[in-house]
Formats: sequence, C-alpha cells, structure tokens
Amino acid sequence: MRAIIKATEQAGSLQVADVPRPQPGPRDVLVRMKAAGICYSDVSILTNRYIGRKPVPIPIIMGHEGAGIVEEVGAEVQGLRPGTPVAFEVLSGCGKCEQCRIGFKNMCEDWEHMGITCHGTFAEYAVVPAHLVHPMPEGMEFVEAAFLEPLSLTVRTLEYVRPLPGETVAILGPGALGMLHLQAFLSAGASMVAVVGLEQDRKRFELARSLGAHCIVNLSERDPVQAIREATGGRGVDIVVETANSPNATRLAFDLAAARGRVILFGLYPEATISPVTMLRKGLTVHGDVAILPKHFLRAMNWIATGKVDVKKLITRRFRLEEAQEAFDSLREGETVKVVFDI
Amino acid sequence: MRAIIKATEQAGSLQVADVPRPQPGPRDVLVRMKAAGICYSDVSILTNRYIGRKPVPIPIIMGHEGAGIVEEVGAEVQGLRPGTPVAFEVLSGCGKCEQCRIGFKNMCEDWEHMGITCHGTFAEYAVVPAHLVHPMPEGMEFVEAAFLEPLSLTVRTLEYVRPLPGETVAILGPGALGMLHLQAFLSAGASMVAVVGLEQDRKRFELARSLGAHCIVNLSERDPVQAIREATGGRGVDIVVETANSPNATRLAFDLAAARGRVILFGLYPEATISPVTMLRKGLTVHGDVAILPKHFLRAMNWIATGKVDVKKLITRRFRLEEAQEAFDSLREGETVKVVFDI
Amino acid sequence: MRAIIKATEQAGSLQVADVPRPQPGPRDVLVRMKAAGICYSDVSILTNRYIGRKPVPIPIIMGHEGAGIVEEVGAEVQGLRPGTPVAFEVLSGCGKCEQCRIGFKNMCEDWEHMGITCHGTFAEYAVVPAHLVHPMPEGMEFVEAAFLEPLSLTVRTLEYVRPLPGETVAILGPGALGMLHLQAFLSAGASMVAVVGLEQDRKRFELARSLGAHCIVNLSERDPVQAIREATGGRGVDIVVETANSPNATRLAFDLAAARGRVILFGLYPEATISPVTMLRKGLTVHGDVAILPKHFLRAMNWIATGKVDVKKLITRRFRLEEAQEAFDSLREGETVKVVFDI
Amino acid sequence: MRAIIKATEQAGSLQVADVPRPQPGPRDVLVRMKAAGICYSDVSILTNRYIGRKPVPIPIIMGHEGAGIVEEVGAEVQGLRPGTPVAFEVLSGCGKCEQCRIGFKNMCEDWEHMGITCHGTFAEYAVVPAHLVHPMPEGMEFVEAAFLEPLSLTVRTLEYVRPLPGETVAILGPGALGMLHLQAFLSAGASMVAVVGLEQDRKRFELARSLGAHCIVNLSERDPVQAIREATGGRGVDIVVETANSPNATRLAFDLAAARGRVILFGLYPEATISPVTMLRKGLTVHGDVAILPKHFLRAMNWIATGKVDVKKLITRRFRLEEAQEAFDSLREGETVKVVFDI
Ligand SMILES: NC(=O)c1ccc[n+]([C@@H]2O[C@H](COP(=O)([O-])OP(=O)(O)OC[C@H]3O[C@@H](n4cnc5c(N)ncnc54)[C@H](OP(=O)(O)O)[C@@H]3O)[C@@H](O)[C@H]2O)c1
Ligand SMILES: NC(=O)c1ccc[n+]([C@@H]2O[C@H](COP(=O)([O-])OP(=O)(O)OC[C@H]3O[C@@H](n4cnc5c(N)ncnc54)[C@H](OP(=O)(O)O)[C@@H]3O)[C@@H](O)[C@H]2O)c1
Ligand SMILES: NC(=O)c1ccc[n+]([C@@H]2O[C@H](COP(=O)([O-])OP(=O)(O)OC[C@H]3O[C@@H](n4cnc5c(N)ncnc54)[C@H](OP(=O)(O)O)[C@@H]3O)[C@@H](O)[C@H]2O)c1
Ligand SMILES: NC(=O)c1ccc[n+]([C@@H]2O[C@H](COP(=O)([O-])OP(=O)(O)OC[C@H]3O[C@@H](n4cnc5c(N)ncnc54)[C@H](OP(=O)(O)O)[C@@H]3O)[C@@H](O)[C@H]2O)c1
Ligand SMILES: [Zn+2]
Ligand SMILES: [Zn+2]
Ligand SMILES: [Zn+2]
Ligand SMILES: [Zn+2]
Repeated sequence: MRAIIKATEQAGSLQVADVPRPQPGPRDVLVRMKAAGICYSDVSILTNRYIGRKPVPIPIIMGHEGAGIVEEVGAEVQGLRPGTPVAFEVLSGCGKCEQCRIGFKNMCEDWEHMGITCHGTFAEYAVVPAHLVHPMPEGMEFVEAAFLEPLSLTVRTLEYVRPLPGETVAILGPGALGMLHLQAFLSAGASMVAVVGLEQDRKRFELARSLGAHCIVNLSERDPVQAIREATGGRGVDIVVETANSPNATRLAFDLAAARGRVILFGLYPEATISPVTMLRKGLTVHGDVAILPKHFLRAMNWIATGKVDVKKLITRRFRLEEAQEAFDSLREGETVKVVFDI
Repeated sequence: MRAIIKATEQAGSLQVADVPRPQPGPRDVLVRMKAAGICYSDVSILTNRYIGRKPVPIPIIMGHEGAGIVEEVGAEVQGLRPGTPVAFEVLSGCGKCEQCRIGFKNMCEDWEHMGITCHGTFAEYAVVPAHLVHPMPEGMEFVEAAFLEPLSLTVRTLEYVRPLPGETVAILGPGALGMLHLQAFLSAGASMVAVVGLEQDRKRFELARSLGAHCIVNLSERDPVQAIREATGGRGVDIVVETANSPNATRLAFDLAAARGRVILFGLYPEATISPVTMLRKGLTVHGDVAILPKHFLRAMNWIATGKVDVKKLITRRFRLEEAQEAFDSLREGETVKVVFDI
Repeated sequence: MRAIIKATEQAGSLQVADVPRPQPGPRDVLVRMKAAGICYSDVSILTNRYIGRKPVPIPIIMGHEGAGIVEEVGAEVQGLRPGTPVAFEVLSGCGKCEQCRIGFKNMCEDWEHMGITCHGTFAEYAVVPAHLVHPMPEGMEFVEAAFLEPLSLTVRTLEYVRPLPGETVAILGPGALGMLHLQAFLSAGASMVAVVGLEQDRKRFELARSLGAHCIVNLSERDPVQAIREATGGRGVDIVVETANSPNATRLAFDLAAARGRVILFGLYPEATISPVTMLRKGLTVHGDVAILPKHFLRAMNWIATGKVDVKKLITRRFRLEEAQEAFDSLREGETVKVVFDI
Repeated sequence: MRAIIKATEQAGSLQVADVPRPQPGPRDVLVRMKAAGICYSDVSILTNRYIGRKPVPIPIIMGHEGAGIVEEVGAEVQGLRPGTPVAFEVLSGCGKCEQCRIGFKNMCEDWEHMGITCHGTFAEYAVVPAHLVHPMPEGMEFVEAAFLEPLSLTVRTLEYVRPLPGETVAILGPGALGMLHLQAFLSAGASMVAVVGLEQDRKRFELARSLGAHCIVNLSERDPVQAIREATGGRGVDIVVETANSPNATRLAFDLAAARGRVILFGLYPEATISPVTMLRKGLTVHGDVAILPKHFLRAMNWIATGKVDVKKLITRRFRLEEAQEAFDSLREGETVKVVFDI
C-alpha cells in the first residue's frame, strides 16, 4: 500500500513509499483510511524538533489524525464489523502503570501513539487497537471525523477552564488548534474572543473573522496588551489559550490575562521565560497537558454531530497521499489552516 | 407615595396605599422606581406560604426586583449622583457573622432582604444601601434591569454546574426562572434543553419553544422519564434544574438525570420525598442555594449587555402599581410568564 | 471447595456448601482466599432487601471484600505469578458503554460485581479478572487487604468533599464505614469529628472514642441538632457522612450541616423524606455514589501502607467459613463493628 | 511613639524613630501593638527589591504582621472595645472595583496594605480599619496571633491544592512560609513532605526535621530531582510549593512534580525560565496568587486555636523595636526562621 513515511533520521526526509499492508492482531482492527489531517506535531517530527517520551522509530508511517472504514477485524474483536465507518483514538497506555490504571493514559510513560511511536494514519490502511475505535455517528463525513483528535484537545481545554457565557478569551496562534478553540468558545457563549497572530497570518485572520472572532490582533501592528485592554474595558481576558508555535507566546499569555484568569498552554517548548510577579499579582491558574482521553474524544464527536463546531470550514487545502511534499510545504504558507489528505 | 403593601397578617391582604416617601440614611440611596417584576416569592409571601429566616414584618412594601433612577444620595455616599439610572441588589448581610465575613451574605442568619424583611420595590421610591447599587450599563432598559435579580439566580446555577457545550438539560417548571435558565443554557451551548411542565402551562410551552427549547414535556400527556430518555438516546440529562412550584418536582429531578448528573433545586418546600437509591446509583451531585451574591449580579448585567439572554421576551403582562390585584391574579393564569410593573 | 452461599430465593437462606473449585479463564486469576470481611450489603442481599441493577443470581457465593494468594493464572495473564499475595477490586464494567469508556465503571448498567452479580469472596478460591488484581504492598496483612474495598469508599468520600484541616465532621452510623470515615477525617486534620448512633451502638461508641472521635451522640439520649450545635459553636458541621442503615438518617444529615456544608449519602434507601427548604437555606451540596474506581483502591492501599488508617482496630470478631451463621448473627449485636472470615 | 521606619528612598535606610501616635478615624481602631513578625517582603521593601502595585511611600512605618490590644475605637465602630486582644488583616480593597465587589480585595489595583502602601505594624500603635479586626480566640498568645497573616497564605495554598491524606509534597525554601506549609501539610495527612534548601539552611533543616519533615534535600549535596524520585518511588511529588527566594526555584518546582501535580508559586520574581514541555508532559496545574482574603484569616485562627499548627516553634529570635537593625541582620543568617518583635 502507499504511505507517507519519515524515512531516515534526517530532518525533512519525507517519502511516499510502497509498504506492506499491515495485518491486524487478534484485538486490532484494520482500517481502510479515507481522510487524514496534518497537525503541527507531524511537522515537528519531520523537522526533528519533536521532543518525545521515547525516540520516534525510523522509518515510520506518519500521521495521527484520520478516519476510515473497517476493512478487517482481529479474531477476538467484538462489536465491530467490516464496512463500518469509524473514527479512532490514537493513543494507548501500557495499561499497567499507575496513571493508566487511574484513567490517564496520556500520562503513561510507556505510551504508544500512532504516528509518533508506531505507524500512523497517512497510508491506505492502518492498524488500530479495537478499544480505540468508535463507529462514526450517522451523517458524519470522513473529513469531519479526521478532526476528532485535535478537536478533542479543544474539549480538554474547555474541561479545564469551564467557561461561563459572557467570559472573554484570547487565543494566541490562529492555526488549526486556534480556530477550533475559537469555535468552541463561541459555542460556549464567550462574549469576546480575540485571535492573536503574526503578519503572515493575514489569511488566517480572515477565516477567524468569518468564524465570529470579535477582535483580531496582528502582533506586527499593535501592542497586544493594549489591544486586549481596549477589547475588555481594561480588564484583560478571563481565559487565554496559547496555541502559537513560539515560546514568546508563553509569556504573552500571562500578560493578556485578567485578574484570576485561566491560562492553557499548548506549546511544547523546551524553554520559555515568564514573569512570575505578573502571574502572581493576577492570581492566575495555568494548565498544561498533552494528548487526550476517551471522554474528550466522545465529547468531540458530540460537538460535530450537534453542530457545535463546523470543522470543515478550517480545511484550506486537500491533497492526495502522493502529494505529501506539497501538502507539508503548503503548511508553511500563512494561507493554510488545516491540510487534509483524501485517501 | 403609592406603594403595594401586604397590609395585615392575613393571607392575600394586598393593598395599594399611600405611604410616606422614605428618607435615605447617610449611606443609602433613594431610588425613583421605574420598573419592578413580580416573583413567585412575592406570591408566597402574600399567601403566607413563605418560610423565612425571620418573620415578614407587617405592613411591608412588597417586591424585590426592580430598577430606577437615583433621586437622592445620603451624606456619605460617594460615586453615585441623582439622575443616574441604576439597578440594585436587594440583600444585605449583617456584615459581622462568619458567612458575611467570608463573602456569603446569602447565608447570613440576620440578613435584610428588600420585600421580605424590609420595604421593597413595588413603590414609587425605594431606599437602597449605596453599596448594593450598580449604575446601569449604557443602553440597558429599566424593564431589563428589573430582571437582574432573577437572572442572577440563573448565573448562580451555571456557576454550580459549569455546563460544557453539547450537554443536555431538563428544566422543571416553565415559569420565569425556568425561561431564564432555558436562555442561559442555550447560550452556553447545550445541545438539548427540555422544558417540563403542566397542562396549564401550554402558553408557556409556546414561549419556551420560540426561545429554542428542543423538547417540551407536558406532564399530563407523557411520562417524563420516558420522554427524556427518548430525547437523550437513553442517557437522561446531564443537568436538571428544578424551578417548579411543587415538591413532586424534587423527586422527578433525580429521575431525569443521567449518570453523574448535576441537579439544582430551587423549590423551598418544607418536605419532599426522594429516592436515595436512584440518586446514588446515578452518582448525582445536588446543589441547593438561596439568593445571590455580587458576582452573580455583575455577570447577569454582562449577560443582558452582551445579549446572552433576552429578558424582554419573558414579559407577558405589564401593569401599573394601582393594578396590583390584577397583576397578582394574572400570575395564576398559565399564560403569564413574567409580570412587570411600570412605575 | 467450601463456600458460603445464598442458596435459594428465600430471605436468610444461608448455607455453607461444597462447590466445585472454579477455573480461571484466559485473562483471569484464581485466588486462594485468606481473609474476607462482611459488609452491610451482604446482609441486605441475604435478607432480600438489596435493590440491584440486575437480580442477584441464585445460588451465589457471597462476599465482595477479601484478599489472598495467587493460585493460578490464565493463559494470557502477564505480570502476576502464583504465590503472590494480592488484593483485588471486585467490579468490572462492560467496557463498551459510555460510562465505561470514560472511566466510570461504577456507573455501568451492565456491571459484574463479585458477590452481587457473580460469585464472591466467601470461599476457599475465587476467580478474579486479572486487570482487577493488585499485588499487596510489602508488609500488608491479608486482613488489612480485606478492608481495601470499604476503605476505598472512604477515599471516594474524601475525594468529593476534600476536607481542609480544621473542618468539622459528623458521621451518622457508627458501623464499619463510619469508623473508616472517622479515621480518614482525623488523618485529614478534622478538628472535630462527631459520631452519631443509636442506643444499641454503645460498644461502637467506645471504639469511636478510642479512635479519636471528639463527640459521641446517642440519638436516644440527646437531640442531635442541639448536640452538634454545641460541638461546633453553633455552626453545624462542615461535612456530614450518612453511613447509617436508616432512611431517617438522610434527613438528619441535612439538619446537622453548617452553611455551605457538604453531605455524602451512602444509604441506598428506596425512599427518604427530606426538607428542601433546610437544604437550600444552608446552600448544601449533596453527593451520592456507589462502588469504587481504581483510583480509590490505589489510594486506599496507600492509606494502609502509610498508616493513615489502622483498619485492624475495627475487627471485633473473626470466624471460619463454617461459622457463617454465627458470623452473620454477630452483626446484629451492637458490639460488632467489622466481622472477618479467616479462610 | 517608637516605630521602625524606612526613612529614605535609599536601599537599607532603616531607622527607629519617634513619630506621632496616630489618630484612628471614625471607622478605625487604634491598636496597642504587642507582637509583630518580620516577613521576607519587609526585607525586599527595605532593600528596594519589592515590586508593588504602587510605589512604597517614604517614610513608612514598616511591618504587616502583628497583634495587640484595642486602645481606642473610632466614633462609628461597633462591637469592639478598648482592652480586647485582637489580630487583624492588613489589606483593604478600594471597595468599588469589580474584584473588590466580587470578594477578591487581593486583586484590587488600588489596594491599601499596611507596611506597603501605608503605615504598618512595627510601632507601639497602629491604626487599623475596624472591619479588618478580629478578637483573638481565648488562649491565643500575641506572638501566635502575629503569625496569622503568613499562616493565612498557607491556608490559601491548601485551598488551592486540597490535599488528600497520603499525598506527597515538596517545599522549596525552608523559611518561615516553608515551615508553615510543612506543618499544614502534615496536619492534612501528607505521607511524605520533603523540604528543599541550600547549604546555609542547615539549621533550618534541623527545625524542619523536628517538625516532622520526611526528607531533607540540601541542593549543594544532592540532585533534587533524583532525591525526590527516591522519596516517592519514582513518581515525583503530588504537590510542590515554591517559597524560596530565587527564580531558579520556579523551574525546579516543575521538575519535582509528579504526573498531574499541582504547583504553587510564591516568589514574586520579575523573570524566571521554565520548561513548558516538562510542564505539559506532566499535565501540571500551576497557581500563583498574592495576599489573603478573610476566609483564609479565619481558617488560620482556627488552625492555631485547634493546634493544627504550632507557630511558636518557628520563632528563632525575639527583639525589641529598638533592635531593628539586629533583627533584620539576623534574617540573613541561615539560623533564623522567624524573627518577632516584642513590643
Ligand atoms: N499539548 C498538546 O497536547 C498539543 C497537541 C497538539 C498540538 N500542540 C501544539 O499546539 C500548537 C498549535 O498547533 P497547531 O496545529 O494549531 O499549529 P499551527 O496550525 O501551526 O498554528 C500555530 C499558529 O500560531 C502562529 N504563531 C507563530 N508564532 C506566533 C506568536 N508569537 N504569536 C501568535 N501566533 C504565532 C503560527 O503562525 P506561522 O505558521 O506563520 O508561524 C500559526 O498560525 C503547536 O505548538 C503544537 O505543537 C500541543
Ligand atoms: N432558592 C432560591 O434562591 C429561589 C429564588 C427564587 C425563586 N425560587 C423558587 O423557584 C421556583 C420558581 O420560581 P418562578 O418565579 O419561576 O415561579 P413560576 O413563574 O411560578 O414558575 C413555576 C412553574 O412551574 C410550574 N409547575 C408547577 N408544578 C409543576 C410540576 N410538578 N412540574 C413542572 N412544573 C410545574 C408552574 O405551573 P403553574 O403556575 O401552572 O402551577 C409554573 O409554570 C419557586 O418555587 C420559587 O419559590 C427559589
Ligand atoms: N453507596 C455505596 O457505595 C455503599 C457501599 C457500601 C455500603 N453502603 C451502605 O452504607 C451503609 C453503612 O454500611 P456499613 O457496612 O458501615 O453498615 P453497618 O456496619 O451496619 O453500620 C451502620 C451503623 O448505623 C447504625 N444506625 C442505624 N440506624 C441509625 C440511625 N438512624 N442513626 C445513626 N446510626 C444508625 C447501625 O446500628 P444498628 O446496627 O444497631 O442498626 C450501625 O451501627 C449501609 O446502608 C450500606 O448499605 C453504601
Ligand atoms: N505571593 C505572596 O502572596 C507572598 C506572600 C509572602 C511571601 N511571599 C514570598 O514567599 C517567599 C518566601 O517567603 P519567606 O518569608 O518564607 O522567606 P524566607 O524566610 O526568606 O525563606 C526563603 C527560604 O528559601 C531559601 N532559598 C533561597 N534560594 C533557594 C533555592 N534556590 N532553593 C531552595 N531554597 C532557597 C532561603 O535561604 P537563604 O535565606 O539562605 O537565601 C530561605 O531559607 C519569598 O519569595 C516572598 O517574597 C509571597
Ligand atoms: Zn501506562
Ligand atoms: Zn451576617
Ligand atoms: Zn459499561
Ligand atoms: Zn478594589
């Protein structure tokens, strides 16, 4: 089958290759992939900037977002049948460590994560442990289901901050995660959502505006602290989400928050400089986390099914597996938000 | 000045009377009332069914919702001027007890509550302690501001249950509080809000439907447990709010909840029968509370100002003070949701 | 092997019988039982007062507390070996329903619970799914490990109420669960723990006193509301735990709480009468729940291992399996707190 | 009267001076001071390293911890009488801003804080707004009451992290705040509390040990990450409190935490470098805050009154006001934990 692989240890060694079609084990499902999205983590793996719990094995089929149709089920799998359209989680814990036992497989030190520690979704077929597989709700499209993983991260944010209608929000980084957060906070009744980005994000700002962002802050044009003050009657925002790709954003996140604000950090930077006095004087609470849990995935399915978010609006480019290089290149253009492979 | 009073200890002794215009103390504000809403508590006071922390003094000017214009300020009052349109909280704590000190004046055993322990809002003028008074935001109308007190109760509910988009809700009792909750949960992104009421609530059901309720349950027509199951794919609702006027609703609230649901009780019944085994098997959390805190009032102002709720849609009848009897009578018709006095 | 069974549908039909030694399935472990405690639920099953999610199958080996030594492991079991002393959880979810998927097997409508829906621990051998089995920490005794299940319920309570040092507590019902709660709250720094019970609980009061209870309330001697007021400077207690066996205790729980108190209900009564006005005026939060999750079990192991509770102090009588009738009878005497079988 | 003042803008300009005895306003209380403790903030004010919301006025009577006897009450003060031993909060909000209205005077941008924005406690008399004054409970000593302010900060920490018995804790910085936290977490049932400090803290380590610390980490002798791993079976600690005086400690705090740990930051550093990837991979929640609220003060009184902490054990040196210079100097010796003035 055709698959997009990181072929060597070298940064950027992207290939589209013929690899053997994998065999599902007794408790696995073989999925005929139909759609798969590229995430910034894929880029950081390709460019060797990803800092993982274990080294990324080489060669690896990339990708950890996606959906497809059950092609084959392992001998012990119950309740799933060939032909069923499915979405799936991509993370398994070891099942034995304390964090796994108490329900936090995302904290497992010995996790398996498709596209990161084992083969992923940018291929014609993918093997997925059966307990990670969820039949798609009636009426959901494959490209929508391919968003469930990143959308689940957004659910996780809302579980942490539990917004009330009328609260104000700033999102740093108008990329894919940023736009999903924008939609989610609007659904939750935020009265003001600001999106903060760079000059090269102009096209993304247009999308943000069309999705309902109340305030756009281009960092090369305006002082963000000043801009957010104006947009909030001097208060700062109740909630800040950092989904930029720059450690400067970590510090800025604290600067934009209102008294007793809540800050969510996504950027996995090795280092960032913050101002504790700013954070303390404001009485901030900061949450950092990685990956998702089943409850987030189920809620994300519910959000798409009930129209709380419209993920298709984020798709700016669609490619075939063969066009891997073009697909990854397109991410570097400020015009792209989400890039999806049709498989 | 003209005022609506409960004149004697007898149930129902409603009068419109001439009483002396009150004098503000040094830290009080005299408000020229412009609008005031009737709440079910007023009815229960009038009919002697209200169970208070202290006896209701007689005679008393009734009413605890309302807004107006500053007429006069006491000698020590700063920052408020005659002519300013104002909304106001109606509850003061003793300021000395533990609950007052730690910020929960609603738990003060020695509280003063306008319309309940001292004179209220159904009059041409009302005296209000200055620290309870909030200038109305630009563009807010007096009839809207008159809803801030009950709307604050709705804020309180959302602070307890912290809904996520996509959660499901049942509201028992399609009265004024019920309709405010309906709007608030829709703003917060609830994917299904059911409103449960009686045969005589048919007109109220129409309003609920027009406000966006997804499911209407008329208790004389359908088994509510069955109806809610159907509306939620068998799960029950994540959140139940009991704003009916019947102790039967307390038990029903538990019956409608999903596993790990959250239940908010409003009805101040002396007794109700519940099923602990139902509650425990579902792992429910139940909150009961009374009255409001400043944080709820400020958020309620924010909700009206940012359009999160449209309280005017609830006003079914408007009366003059002179028409007190008609106003209270109209509440007994199922057609009425909120009755407001224009003063 | 010898086992204690409920032999027929009749209330009280207790037998000690010879039954075939069970065979572990490929993912099961066969445990040679060493100790097992009787819980009130066992009594209610025996007396046909237990209200389950599914009917109790007859005949059934009773018991859901216990510990032992691995005798044999199924073909697919990894990481467990014959000869290892083990404790175990007794509840499995279906693994497929929403509540199971999001980590709440205790909410599974199709659960299996040893001693309730399938064979239990009052036998020489018991079959336990391998993922429920936890090797006992160094130095823990079997009779201690036999307390892990009820102690986990106590952990669950503390997770709900999250006591601060200096808070006050009332425990209704000086039985096994009550005494475990007493120890746990003392460990957490409660400044006053009251234990409330009946005249026939005199011996239990002595134990409570020796464990450190600050206040004992014998309901036939004193008005409990008055007694708790005296013990708390008029406030009521911050936390109430209802572990009595009487629906009257549900209402009393609300009466003893302080403003903004937290109430935990254990009693699975079909009906109880409460006073909503009392609950609301105090702004109470009430939690009901059943059974336990892995996180509770692991914390309970930690509590015994680190000496936070001393469960052995609760053992008032020890019996052999053959003495089943005496063991159950002894529970009816007020002198018994916890009854354990040595196997 | 005699008072310790920062006399000029220069760093270190400490004087003991004769100043006029202050007059209480109509809502104030004049307190005859009996005891007052020095806090690290006093040092940072003296050395011009304090970064305040407003500039520190010069000259200023220093000190913000203390207790004494009511000498005189203002005309409008009720419920307080000359001769009453009192403790007091030292922070007033403006009373008008949003944060003040909703109960968070510590977030007020226009606060008054004794010893920081107005005259403080290192004097024979101090003027205190009546609503901040709390009569001391029977049996409490003045030197104990002088600890209520810093102890309240410890209460605030426990309110954020809500420890369960059996959790593990690391405290960075074995100073006054560190020792109060040590005692509080032991009272709350922590199973392992580690205290981390420098070579010059050797004497402080001895005190920590005698108070019950399970593990002492001298940073010049051991790798703290390694030491904490050993003390926690490889997990890291559930809770980290940073009460050191060095921005390096901010980063270290994250390094010591276990998966899903909670971190409390006290150090008001202008800058610190952290590792977001560490924080995120562990799923940490971090809280920063300043100053205290009435609820913390009342709970601190309760902790001293019920023996949850023994603050007197922290007093290493006692001085008279005249010995101000010696008192401040002694803080620089690693032998000192808490320095108190007897007045
Ligand atoms: N913790 C987790 O579980 C988790 C999971 C997934 C992703 N992540 C992280 O989340 C972040 C966002 O992911 P994504 O897929 O949404 O990435 P993305 O699509 O690349 O979006 C990031 C956006 O931020 C912009 N940006 C760069 N520097 C900025 C700055 N200083 N201020 C504001 N915006 C800035 C980027 O602009 P340019 O493209 O022009 O640079 C881009 O528009 C990444 O850092 C990723 O590693 C974390
Ligand atoms: N805890 C607090 O802080 C607080 C504050 C304010 C109000 N409350 C309470 O909140 C409740 C609602 O207040 P409200 O002003 O919204 O009252 P309302 O306008 O009278 O609304 C109550 C609605 O519930 C309906 N109802 C009666 N029995 C019912 C049942 N068994 N099931 C479902 N619906 C039923 C009523 O119908 P009919 O009119 O036809 O009977 C009415 O439509 C009252 O009990 C009030 O005392 C509590
Ligand atoms: N929700 C759950 O997950 C769960 C799990 C386990 C147990 N439970 C329930 O928890 C309760 C306690 O279990 P347990 O094993 O501790 O039972 P237990 O040992 O029988 O203890 C109950 C104690 O309460 C006393 N009592 C009876 N009526 C009382 C009253 N009105 N006020 C105060 N005390 C009273 C009993 O006295 P007498 O013995 O003299 O009557 C006995 O001392 C039971 O109802 C059980 O069904 C619930
Ligand atoms: N946020 C707030 O509301 C608030 C309120 C009060 C205090 N604070 C802050 O809390 C901190 C502690 O106050 P305190 O009164 O307890 O101060 P303290 O008595 O001076 O204690 C700090 C201790 O930390 C030690 N230390 C210095 N560098 C360290 C390092 N890298 N690692 C570990 N320990 C180190 C110090 O040793 P040496 O003395 O030998 O340097 C000293 O023993 C201060 O930074 C203060 O400004 C914050
Ligand atoms: Zn694991
Ligand atoms: Zn009060
Ligand atoms: Zn299940
Ligand atoms: Zn203020």
